[in-house]
Amino acid sequence: MSSTEPRHAQVIGTGLIGGSIGMALRLAGWRVTGMDRDPQVADRARERGAIDEVAIDGSAELCVVALPVGSIVDAAREMLDRSEWVVTDVGSVKGPIVAGVDSPRFVGGHPMAGSEQDGIGGSNGTMFQGAAWVVTPTETTDPTAHALVHTLAVSCGADVVTMSADDHDRVVAMVSHVPHLTAVTLMGMAATRANDHAALLRLAAGGFRDMTRIAAGHPGIWPDICAENRDAIVDVLDDIVAELQAVRSVVAGGDRAALLERLTLARTARLNLPTTAGPPEALTEILVGVSDRPGVLAEIATLATATSTNIYDLEIAHSAEGAQGVLILLVDAAAAAGFVDAIVGRGYRCSARDLT
Amino acid sequence: MSSTEPRHAQVIGTGLIGGSIGMALRLAGWRVTGMDRDPQVADRARERGAIDEVAIDGSAELCVVALPVGSIVDAAREMLDRSEWVVTDVGSVKGPIVAGVDSPRFVGGHPMAGSEQDGIGGSNGTMFQGAAWVVTPTETTDPTAHALVHTLAVSCGADVVTMSADDHDRVVAMVSHVPHLTAVTLMGMAATRANDHAALLRLAAGGFRDMTRIAAGHPGIWPDICAENRDAIVDVLDDIVAELQAVRSVVAGGDRAALLERLTLARTARLNLPTTAGPPEALTEILVGVSDRPGVLAEIATLATATSTNIYDLEIAHSAEGAQGVLILLVDAAAAAGFVDAIVGRGYRCSARDLT
Repeated sequence: MSSTEPRHAQVIGTGLIGGSIGMALRLAGWRVTGMDRDPQVADRARERGAIDEVAIDGSAELCVVALPVGSIVDAAREMLDRSEWVVTDVGSVKGPIVAGVDSPRFVGGHPMAGSEQDGIGGSNGTMFQGAAWVVTPTETTDPTAHALVHTLAVSCGADVVTMSADDHDRVVAMVSHVPHLTAVTLMGMAATRANDHAALLRLAAGGFRDMTRIAAGHPGIWPDICAENRDAIVDVLDDIVAELQAVRSVVAGGDRAALLERLTLARTARLNLPTTAGPPEALTEILVGVSDRPGVLAEIATLATATSTNIYDLEIAHSAEGAQGVLILLVDAAAAAGFVDAIVGRGYRCSARDLT
Repeated sequence: MSSTEPRHAQVIGTGLIGGSIGMALRLAGWRVTGMDRDPQVADRARERGAIDEVAIDGSAELCVVALPVGSIVDAAREMLDRSEWVVTDVGSVKGPIVAGVDSPRFVGGHPMAGSEQDGIGGSNGTMFQGAAWVVTPTETTDPTAHALVHTLAVSCGADVVTMSADDHDRVVAMVSHVPHLTAVTLMGMAATRANDHAALLRLAAGGFRDMTRIAAGHPGIWPDICAENRDAIVDVLDDIVAELQAVRSVVAGGDRAALLERLTLARTARLNLPTTAGPPEALTEILVGVSDRPGVLAEIATLATATSTNIYDLEIAHSAEGAQGVLILLVDAAAAAGFVDAIVGRGYRCSARDLT
């Protein structure tokens, strides 16, 4: 972004995630004000350098609501009512929040990083480096608000992944919520059986420790998450139960070929699990002519996710919605061709220019 | 041990575990000879310093069969037939092996350490430092053989855990085999669903990576393990399916209290998972008068496990079985009182002496 004045952000809730966002933004040159319902928590955040000042800054462009999932809708609506701020959140469930807030100036967000440590004590400004940060605009999202939240995530060092709130919720049930409940279940079973075998927990080697590490996290956030994302979690739990029953049949029946097939599929997938993409070696600038169709930016950004294209920067020249305008996107050169094809496939005019 | 001549050990199978045992024993001053069905693997083990020589050493006291689970029984019986060696193994299943070999000179063993890397390339001499090493003597095990295998594990830096072969198999189904199959199942589900959501695997953060890390391991060993430990694995799979169904009911019903109870139990257990015990600050020497009851050493060593007592050294003065004799055990002072009580409770004469 080209402004020489520091950009201003407001953080509501200066715990682990809010504090880390403050630190990351300050490292990137932003000015950050923060508030917490517990004044001592806000003071500690300032002492640790997570925020510049304990205050509400009416001149901020952007407000990050970093509160527990169950408190986000009310807090975000209050912030939207009393200011002109663009508002985003960091909740690990998105569908009910995006539907509940329902404002063109609200864009749901979910940085996929965290820590077993709670509160500001564990926060740090590099927590989001290379992590995925999901952004969930809708058809009615103001494109300027969307672009600003995208910039926030990029300023924190994250890779932006744009998708619908409902897709997000199904995906995180699979890669986060159900794995967490499974870790809790394994740990609980082992602890219960340890009453019969004093040696049981002494035999828990590295693999068991890896698999149950997240069960050491603070339980407090999970009742809200399980309530808000109930349907997706129940679906995935049904799937894992069915899959484990299939594994039981394979083991009980001594079906070595079927067992090897499952093990090999999982091994290949695990070895190919994407690792943090470093900064790209080359960037391509993509220009997209956009007309008055609503939700254009949301549609283009979602296409980027579907084609595994990282958007490093985006700008809206003229008005992107309403009258004719131009979207300028900076993406990795390697992914550009597939991304352009996808955009053209949706009927947009589109050109690409290498920046080398 | 008081010998000034180096002790001699023979390793059969110089892959990851066999090579690491060789390295650990050589660091502890043993002389180690090794053989592998693949001469190139044995040569590489010698080049890496895992063994002193590629050879069969008839003067070795002890032979470690470090072969895949399905090959152990035949190999161990052959070694027992053609030598006076005490023989042990490192298989991750014990019941069928101990029953299949069935010799007073064979003592089942299972070092609970490993690595995702296969073969001698991943082996190292510190792999067993502080790891648990299960030893599974029976009533008919020669106590001299049992003591020698105990010494082998201690020489590798491990904490010896003595238990029956069947208990071992139930416990490792819980802390190793079913967790592995669960990691494979989670990874397989995520990979399958990733076909619908290109972004899914990009959103797999640290917790998911931790939980599926072991799924990257080589599949080759698992069909044997699942065949040999089938009954225990099927039992634990039935349990985890039932537990996950219970979690599903809790989530679907919105029962926050029941969910918090599960999360809190698991958190407490995970935070209390025993970590590697360092060397004890003080040691106590325990003398146990033993008569001609068979399996005395096995019984005493199993009591040590049941009372969470590490045995750092053990010696059999006179003949421990047959005529009257004395067992001399070196244990951590902090655990000694409970251990002595347990021994006396079984009707033995027992005295303790602090070594400070």
